[in-house]
Amino acid sequence: MTFELHALLNRDTYLIAESELNLLLLHKDANYPWFILVPKIANISEIYQLDWQDQQQLLNESSLLSELLMQVFAGDKMNVAALGNVVEQLHVHHVVRFKTDSQWPKPIWGQQAASPYSAEALAELKEKLLPQLAVIFSEK
Amino acid sequence: MTFELHALLNRDTYLIAESELNLLLLHKDANYPWFILVPKIANISEIYQLDWQDQQQLLNESSLLSELLMQVFAGDKMNVAALGNVVEQLHVHHVVRFKTDSQWPKPIWGQQAASPYSAEALAELKEKLLPQLAVIFSEK
Repeated sequence: MTFELHALLNRDTYLIAESELNLLLLHKDANYPWFILVPKIANISEIYQLDWQDQQQLLNESSLLSELLMQVFAGDKMNVAALGNVVEQLHVHHVVRFKTDSQWPKPIWGQQAASPYSAEALAELKEKLLPQLAVIFSEK
Repeated sequence: MTFELHALLNRDTYLIAESELNLLLLHKDANYPWFILVPKIANISEIYQLDWQDQQQLLNESSLLSELLMQVFAGDKMNVAALGNVVEQLHVHHVVRFKTDSQWPKPIWGQQAASPYSAEALAELKEKLLPQLAVIFSEK
């Protein structure tokens, strides 16, 4: 089986970078800095279904991403979650939360309509973030 | 600094088992099989703040727990999440979800009032689960 990104993730996100293991997606919702890691392995819906080496690599990239996001966006809290009730394909949310954001302290999922990025805001975000991720992720 | 379980986690959960690294808590909400791992390390609010060995051990216990919970409860999906917007102390939710549960496919947090366990249901759950977790967790 060949890995293919789920149609809903493809619709709702921008593919901004890639590592050997993961796609790094940015959710098309400018309400929060909201990133998603998707291991490029077919037919996996749970973290424990990855082999142990890939689990560790996912953790490694998740932690690197989380720490950088908190620094770059000066966030108050990271929300890291593998849910998958709607899109079963394994994907791990990384959302930077602020005590001032509109849904704080509630989880973000399903709370409000997405607010689109302007082309300028998207370019600015990528410029701010991607050089710092270059240790693991290549820009797409 | 000595680790101490946050007062809200202490109030809302049962401590059912413990590993060298983690407390294993059961949320006092019988709507879902809802477990929480809490690393016994003071002043940590993000996974990436743990040293790398502890991060790997947390992942290892999280994956073991997830797989066992899915087997024991015959769940449809695991929801694994480190949120912490209300309780900053690092804690990782592990919730077994069913396509028939009352909130499916929404996330569970903040959706409905907790439904308490009876003493019998609690004893039954522990009897069903804890022997299988004994490879890593000791009963409390």
